[in-house]
Amino acid sequence: MFKTIEYVDGVVRMIDQTKLPLEKLYVDCRTVEEVGRAIKTMVIRGAPAIGVAAAMGISLAAESIQADDFGAFYPLLEERCAELGKSRPTAVNLAWAIDRMKRVAKDHKGMGIASLKDRLKREALAIYEEDIAANRAMGEFGQALVPDGSAALTHCNAGALATAGFGTALGVIRAAVNAGKRVRVLANETRPFLQGARLTVWELKEDGIPVKLITDNMCGFFMKKKQIDLVVVGADRIAANGDVANKIGTYMVAVMAREHDIPFYVAAPISTLDLSLPTGDEIPIEERSPDEVAFINNKRIAPEGVEVAHPAFDVTPNRLVSAIITEKGIALPPYAESLARLAGKK
Amino acid sequence: MFKTIEYVDGVVRMIDQTKLPLEKLYVDCRTVEEVGRAIKTMVIRGAPAIGVAAAMGISLAAESIQADDFGAFYPLLEERCAELGKSRPTAVNLAWAIDRMKRVAKDHKGMGIASLKDRLKREALAIYEEDIAANRAMGEFGQALVPDGSAALTHCNAGALATAGFGTALGVIRAAVNAGKRVRVLANETRPFLQGARLTVWELKEDGIPVKLITDNMCGFFMKKKQIDLVVVGADRIAANGDVANKIGTYMVAVMAREHDIPFYVAAPISTLDLSLPTGDEIPIEERSPDEVAFINNKRIAPEGVEVAHPAFDVTPNRLVSAIITEKGIALPPYAESLARLAGKK
Repeated sequence: MFKTIEYVDGVVRMIDQTKLPLEKLYVDCRTVEEVGRAIKTMVIRGAPAIGVAAAMGISLAAESIQADDFGAFYPLLEERCAELGKSRPTAVNLAWAIDRMKRVAKDHKGMGIASLKDRLKREALAIYEEDIAANRAMGEFGQALVPDGSAALTHCNAGALATAGFGTALGVIRAAVNAGKRVRVLANETRPFLQGARLTVWELKEDGIPVKLITDNMCGFFMKKKQIDLVVVGADRIAANGDVANKIGTYMVAVMAREHDIPFYVAAPISTLDLSLPTGDEIPIEERSPDEVAFINNKRIAPEGVEVAHPAFDVTPNRLVSAIITEKGIALPPYAESLARLAGKK
Repeated sequence: MFKTIEYVDGVVRMIDQTKLPLEKLYVDCRTVEEVGRAIKTMVIRGAPAIGVAAAMGISLAAESIQADDFGAFYPLLEERCAELGKSRPTAVNLAWAIDRMKRVAKDHKGMGIASLKDRLKREALAIYEEDIAANRAMGEFGQALVPDGSAALTHCNAGALATAGFGTALGVIRAAVNAGKRVRVLANETRPFLQGARLTVWELKEDGIPVKLITDNMCGFFMKKKQIDLVVVGADRIAANGDVANKIGTYMVAVMAREHDIPFYVAAPISTLDLSLPTGDEIPIEERSPDEVAFINNKRIAPEGVEVAHPAFDVTPNRLVSAIITEKGIALPPYAESLARLAGKK
C-alpha cells in the first residue's frame, strides 16, 4: 500500500498525484512554502488531504521560526498561516486545519517555544490520525446504504488519495466490501484533471475492487440502462443547509441521479462543514488555469488562443442530496437541523 | 476555408479530423476500402459527412469494377456496398447514402456500364451538393430560434466538418450570425474523441464566431448561472417518434437543459430520419475501442488493464427535444406526425 502523505523527521512526504498512475513518485516538502506549492499544483488534493497537509505545513513553519517567546513567535506563525490559507479557496478543510493549529498555539502560549513546536507537531499528526479514524467511522455508517451486488458511481477521487487514508466516498465502498458485500464501481474520469481515470481507478485496482472507467458524459447513459444503483461522492465544503461544493461535474451527476431515481450520497468529515455559510451560494469557487483544460499530458487538445473556462468546483443544491455521511452519523434532510446536530455531537 | 471532403479525378480527399487542429493534413482515398477505413477510424465523421463519403466511396467502387453488363456489375457493387455499410453502425446516413446509390444503379441498369459509372459519380456529387444546400436551408429555418445576444451550447461537432459544408447545428449558428445576430457558443469538449475541443472550436474560430471551450461536466454549472440560453446539437439517427441518437453525452445535456428550462434543439437533414424505427430503443449504439478513452494523444491516462466502457452514442428521448430543425422546416412535438409530414414533403 501507498501513503498519501506522511510527516517524519522534518519532512512532509506526499505521493505526487499529478504523476499517478504512470509514475509513483514522492515529493518531499521541508518548508511550509513547499507544502503550499504542493497544494496549489495539486501534488496533493482532496479536501481532507489538503487539511492534513496544511496542518503539517504549519508545523514545518513553526519549526523554522527563530523566536524566544510567544510574543515574537506567534505573529510570524500567523503570517505563514495567512499565506498558506491562500493556496486553494474552495476546500474549507484548509482553513479548518490552519485555524485548529493556530488555536492550539494560542492555547499553549505559556509552555515555551521548544515545547510548543512539539505540541504543534503532535497536533498535525493527530489531525492525520483523526482523519483516518473519521474515514473508517464514515465507512461503517455509510456502508449500510450500499446494497449487496450494487454498482456505485463516483466522481473525482474521494479515496485514500484524497485523505490521510481509506477515503470518504471510497471509504464507504471499502467498508461495504469489508462487510462482505459485492460492490462494483463506475468511475467518472473527471475532466479536466482526470482524478477518476488516474487516481480512483488506480487505488481501487490496488485494492482489488472491481472498477470500470467511463467518461463524465457517459454516466447518464448507464443510469438510463439501470446499470448504476447509487452515487457516492466526497465534498470540498458543505454549507449549513446541506448545499455541497464538490469537483466540477458533481452537480450534473446529482441532477442525472434524481432524473433516474438513484440515491445520491455525499461522504465527508465534519471538518468539511462550513456552518458559517447559510447556503452554497456563498462558497467561493476556484477558477483554475485554462491550460489545465486545453492541454493533456503537456500536449494541446484545442486550437491556440481559444477562450477556456475552468471553474474547478460546482455546488449541488441540498434538494438533490439523499444523505450526507459523516463520522458522527448520517445526516438526512432537512440538513440545517441534522448537520448542526451532528456537528455539535461529541 | 477548408473542404471537409471533395471528389476529384478518382480521388476522395478528406481533411484528417483525427489530426485537427494541431495539423491540417489531407487523406486521399482511391478505393472504397480506403473510404471505409477513413470512416471507421474517424478521419471523417459526423452523420451527414459519413453519408457523403459513403456515396463517393461507392462511386469509387463502381469505377473499379470490371464488367461488361449490369448482371455482372451489380452483384459486385452490392458486395462493396455491404462491406462499406459495416463501417459504422449508428449514423443512418451511411445506409441512406448507400441505398440511394444502389437505387440509382438499378434505376439505370439499361444505360451501359461506362455511362452508369458516370451516373453514379454524378449522384455522389449531387449528394454532396444537396447536403450543403440542406444545411443552408436548415440554417435559415433554425436561426429564427436563436435570439440576438444569446449564448448557445453545443456538444460534439455538428459543423462544416461533420457535413459537406456549413454544418447542421453550427449551420444554425452561422445563419444566425449571417442574419446579423450576435451569438456566442459554448463548446463541450466532447470526450473521448474531443470533437468539441478540436473541431468545433477550430471551425468557429476560423469563422470568427466567439466560442468558449468547456469540459462536458461544466455545462450544468453554466446553465445554473444562466449563461446558456439554448442548446443546439446534431444527430446521427432520429427515430419516427423523435428520439434522437447523437454523440455520447447529448442525453445528459438534454436532461440538464430541461432542468434549467433551456430549449434543446436538434438540427439534422431528412436523411438522418429513420422512420422504420418506431423509437430510439431500436437504434444500434456503436461500442468503440476502450483505448479511445484510456489514451489521449497516444499517452495513457488510466492504469494499464483497467476496464473501460465506450458507447459512442446515446439516445435522447423525444420529450426532452424542443424542436427538430430540418431542411424542410421545423418539426415540433408530437414528432411522429411532424417528422412524417416533413419527410413526405417535396
